[in-house]
Amino acid sequence: MKSIRIFDTTLRDGMHAVSHQMTPEQMATIAARLDAAGVDTIEVGHGDGVGGSSMQYGFARATDEEYFKAVAKVLKKTKFAVLLIPGIGTVEDLEVAMEYGVNTVRVATHVTEADTGEQHIKFAKQNGLETIGFLMMSHMATPEKVVEQAKKFESYGADRINITDSAGAMLPAEIKVRIESVLDAVSVPVGFHAHNNLGLAIGNTLAAIEAGATSVDGTIRGLGAGAGNAQLEVLTAAMSKAGYETGVDFYKLMDLGKDIIDNIMDRPQIISNDALAIGYAGAYGSFMLHSRRAAEKFGVDARDILLELGRRKTVGGQEDLIIDVAIELAKKKAAL
Amino acid sequence: MKSIRIFDTTLRDGMHAVSHQMTPEQMATIAARLDAAGVDTIEVGHGDGVGGSSMQYGFARATDEEYFKAVAKVLKKTKFAVLLIPGIGTVEDLEVAMEYGVNTVRVATHVTEADTGEQHIKFAKQNGLETIGFLMMSHMATPEKVVEQAKKFESYGADRINITDSAGAMLPAEIKVRIESVLDAVSVPVGFHAHNNLGLAIGNTLAAIEAGATSVDGTIRGLGAGAGNAQLEVLTAAMSKAGYETGVDFYKLMDLGKDIIDNIMDRPQIISNDALAIGYAGAYGSFMLHSRRAAEKFGVDARDILLELGRRKTVGGQEDLIIDVAIELAKKKAAL
Repeated sequence: MKSIRIFDTTLRDGMHAVSHQMTPEQMATIAARLDAAGVDTIEVGHGDGVGGSSMQYGFARATDEEYFKAVAKVLKKTKFAVLLIPGIGTVEDLEVAMEYGVNTVRVATHVTEADTGEQHIKFAKQNGLETIGFLMMSHMATPEKVVEQAKKFESYGADRINITDSAGAMLPAEIKVRIESVLDAVSVPVGFHAHNNLGLAIGNTLAAIEAGATSVDGTIRGLGAGAGNAQLEVLTAAMSKAGYETGVDFYKLMDLGKDIIDNIMDRPQIISNDALAIGYAGAYGSFMLHSRRAAEKFGVDARDILLELGRRKTVGGQEDLIIDVAIELAKKKAAL
Repeated sequence: MKSIRIFDTTLRDGMHAVSHQMTPEQMATIAARLDAAGVDTIEVGHGDGVGGSSMQYGFARATDEEYFKAVAKVLKKTKFAVLLIPGIGTVEDLEVAMEYGVNTVRVATHVTEADTGEQHIKFAKQNGLETIGFLMMSHMATPEKVVEQAKKFESYGADRINITDSAGAMLPAEIKVRIESVLDAVSVPVGFHAHNNLGLAIGNTLAAIEAGATSVDGTIRGLGAGAGNAQLEVLTAAMSKAGYETGVDFYKLMDLGKDIIDNIMDRPQIISNDALAIGYAGAYGSFMLHSRRAAEKFGVDARDILLELGRRKTVGGQEDLIIDVAIELAKKKAAL
């Protein structure tokens, strides 16, 4: 029976779905139950990782330290991870996390910018942490480019590579080719993190495992940015049916959903029109609001703006392009 | 580009999610917009098909005739279908439907009981309807058994066979082998109807198409029994990404969701613990309530009862078994 490692990100990606407002006490309760359910690793903190609590990314209810302290107390077997996005989090943030027992870090960069994570990966490795290179928006790069970036992570010392479908924009075949290509090129194991914008979080995760991924991410009730992550209690049940060993008692995850998570959620984790538009376009979730404003101003459809932004592989920071795209679309429309 | 026919079942399977309480006016509004969006076929009526409105299956807001009359007025290009479950619906119900312009019928039987649909299929064919044999709970039979039953449908004159994952209990590979096996054995086309209990409605539908299915089902917002159907606006977007031609403008389906369906829904279509338990066990949704009562009485877990019912391939009408299973589980528990 193939054994697959489970990363729960309810206490990190799930924070996006509650505007980063979980309390340290809630995190401790959830962490204890994830630990008791047999989850291998949990990722904790602001939705945008260590140092994320800010004006720009939204203030969390508590500080990183308060969350780490609360969670550290309850963990018995489960590994304790954080996400670090270079530019948001720093090595100093990681030092703080280590003081509280964090032993795993995922250094997350845009799929074409692995080099921005070099110093963080090296620092983490020098300090004895398990270190994972996490390639966000992986749909924006060809499999060859993904391989190139994964090899960079490996050269910095990463213990594992994670392919991340941040916009939930990929189909099973697109996931498979990326996982297989990276596995062919590196000697470290590979994991996968799904989003559900096209309704494929679970289908894509199973496809990733078939392609050779040995770790997968999920959250209770699917809590997460956009359309959310793979719904972990469902994913682990499906994996059990498929004959994979996770070490997880998914009944306990279901009970955790019912007893705790359902009461914390602001809204059900559905695939909204906005989330679908983002997934279809393969665009950044943060472009939605700007696109809608521009759409209204120039009399075009926000979905078409997003689609064009996706085609151009526009990245965060290029929001000025949104107006340009809207104007072009309005001109084309007028010309019809 | 491969062309795939879309069946929308919002106005039939979706009725389960609103306790069959849509009004004829709401159905007409929705049908008109599905037609304008380019949906090939819509299925209309009580969730359990023609004749379903009853004490046993729940009374619908209106009669079959009232729904048919309202919908018939608005359809321009879209085919007009009903579901007929022998034992619930009759040929007389079908005659009524035909008076209102219904031109397609799906005769739905348990996967091992295609012969109960013989007279209905023959009647429909004699009367010039497009006639589809619809095998419910297809996970309960081996691919060989599914083939045997599909061939029966074909011998009665069915124009198409539909593989139906009523409990949302199958994995992509299980769908594929059933679709491929049936296609190898019959000369009519094959379709697929998903449920989302394991989060795989969209993944399984894409797998069905890869295996050769040429028609697929879905509903706006995923409305349907249990965890719901494949969410049609999401499915058609994913199919567009995958390069399949559906004839559907999925922006219009998204708008229909926002303008109309969101206001009709009683609750968001999520994967609840109950729906997951049903999908994992591969049991009938109607067993949930009985299992929970028995679980409480005998101090066992309702999920374990469902699992055992699924293992035994228990079918509707065998509810007495639930108590037997609960007692056995309680004995086993006491012996531990």
